[in-house]
Amino acid sequence: MRVKCIKCGREREGVEVRCKCGGVFKVEVDVPFSKNLRENFPYVKRWISLGEWNTPSIRVEGFTYKLDFLNPTGSYKDRGSVTLISHLSQLGIREISEDSSGNAGASIAAYGAMAGMKVKVFVPSTARGGKLKQIESYGAEVVRVEGTRDDVSRAAENSGAYYASHVLQPEFRDGIRSLAYEIARDHGWKSPGEVFLPTSAGTLLLGVYEGFRHMVSEGVLDRMPKLVAVQTEQVSPVCSKFRGIEYRPPSRVTSIADALVSTNPVLMDEMIRVLQETGDCVVVSENEIMDSWKYLSRKGILAEYSSAVALAGGRKYEVSDPVIVLTGNGLKTL
Amino acid sequence: MRVKCIKCGREREGVEVRCKCGGVFKVEVDVPFSKNLRENFPYVKRWISLGEWNTPSIRVEGFTYKLDFLNPTGSYKDRGSVTLISHLSQLGIREISEDSSGNAGASIAAYGAMAGMKVKVFVPSTARGGKLKQIESYGAEVVRVEGTRDDVSRAAENSGAYYASHVLQPEFRDGIRSLAYEIARDHGWKSPGEVFLPTSAGTLLLGVYEGFRHMVSEGVLDRMPKLVAVQTEQVSPVCSKFRGIEYRPPSRVTSIADALVSTNPVLMDEMIRVLQETGDCVVVSENEIMDSWKYLSRKGILAEYSSAVALAGGRKYEVSDPVIVLTGNGLKTL
Repeated sequence: MRVKCIKCGREREGVEVRCKCGGVFKVEVDVPFSKNLRENFPYVKRWISLGEWNTPSIRVEGFTYKLDFLNPTGSYKDRGSVTLISHLSQLGIREISEDSSGNAGASIAAYGAMAGMKVKVFVPSTARGGKLKQIESYGAEVVRVEGTRDDVSRAAENSGAYYASHVLQPEFRDGIRSLAYEIARDHGWKSPGEVFLPTSAGTLLLGVYEGFRHMVSEGVLDRMPKLVAVQTEQVSPVCSKFRGIEYRPPSRVTSIADALVSTNPVLMDEMIRVLQETGDCVVVSENEIMDSWKYLSRKGILAEYSSAVALAGGRKYEVSDPVIVLTGNGLKTL
Repeated sequence: MRVKCIKCGREREGVEVRCKCGGVFKVEVDVPFSKNLRENFPYVKRWISLGEWNTPSIRVEGFTYKLDFLNPTGSYKDRGSVTLISHLSQLGIREISEDSSGNAGASIAAYGAMAGMKVKVFVPSTARGGKLKQIESYGAEVVRVEGTRDDVSRAAENSGAYYASHVLQPEFRDGIRSLAYEIARDHGWKSPGEVFLPTSAGTLLLGVYEGFRHMVSEGVLDRMPKLVAVQTEQVSPVCSKFRGIEYRPPSRVTSIADALVSTNPVLMDEMIRVLQETGDCVVVSENEIMDSWKYLSRKGILAEYSSAVALAGGRKYEVSDPVIVLTGNGLKTL
């Protein structure tokens, strides 16, 4: 499978993090589809596994919930970490950096630990909470950085360790394809009507898109589901651009959906392209998020607020056979 | 499947919680074994499911870890709750009580919520922490009781709601059989050498025993694995009795393994019988627990301290093909 720049089309050399043209790299999915799902990632020769994948689906009152928060570190990000870290491990990389004080940071820290890597996770100096403790439990070094979110990213990129960014690394985004495969399998190898995805940096939306696109082009599915990106009122740059509305980020994001923070996502153009082809975008309010979170909890399903966002989107949408992807474990934010 | 008193052999009438003789009821496993695992619980007609079962197994440096903390509410208890709550729901029971400020309380609260039941969870007035918040998130009423642990149990038993005790209810303990089936399946339908189980009230040990016993008597396995109960220095009544040593409980349990608290387990005699037949018992120190927890975390596996107890036991035992059951999610105790 070749890895190319999304913008200029140039093939990646070695382990470049970003293309010289400023574009982001992407894995070209040009392999035959296999129902033995791991075979769809032929660049992984030895899986650094923590027991990821094969999360349950349950159907409750008209919605199918994909409980992806039951991945080992408590979020769907493990699907990206397992492919990225396995790949980097094969290349002999022993020291990595990442910037995230949330689920991605925890996931990269855990898989890096299993691979025997030294992991540095860069976080804003204001970061707090259980996810930070989780990152530290895995033995990663947490480096606090004063300044903006961009300052944190720059510090991670220039730390001397290899920059295993969950946003930029193509093998991370590519691992998310596995989620689309499982949704189709859970659905008897048919496309659901809609798949609702909480959307921030775009790794979930783009990864799931690639997986469904693969199955359609290989004739496994006869059509794409509608991929519905769901954003919060505070963090809605994608929905705004999709609808041609101006978006003004707040000076500080205070939403209870605290995993959704990308006010200016690097992968914006790719997301818009995907939504125009086969998707839609919905914005939900704080009250709608809280109502959905409570509804889920009162059914015994404890997801993060940021995951309840997907249901909040589904509830205000005209649906037929909808799947709600619940991305993060609510135990993290109790 | 008949339900009988362990002590006097009398068959259970209706939904008696405890036998008049003081004994505990037990489900008699007299069905043919089916690799379609849910068929081994024929009394469940409609599963009140939250996506339990089929947790991953991973092999790391000589030990196989059954990651049972990846059940929906973050502990193996979901295996007991799903059979118990499904059963009670079929009988039309709409209000239940339970006494546990830990994983069992959270699990019963979640499955009760999915079944649409009113759930009251009785806890000691001193109970604190994330598990209590988890129980409340599921919408259960938490009732704080002054006094001893026995006072809390009595309050739950006499609350007016049906007493869905995870220790006494035979359908709870019986659900744990599913864990033995999965361990055998993960092992290619062979018995591992040893299965290490953190042991407190005994539901895990007795449930896993029944599952393996079922497979051996049905000819699916050719022998029992050795079931090794692991206890902490502070809470080691089972190991003490098994070795013929006097056990003196501390005035207060302060172990980091805070899910293991049964200093005087109701199911003691049953546990001793099982250990004499096919098991062993190991006691581990606080340092050994912490070392094992750190080892696991530094591999990316975040379990509860109370689960790391099982590995601490495995590490000081002469093993051949050992399985460590990791029972509770470390996110709960960060």
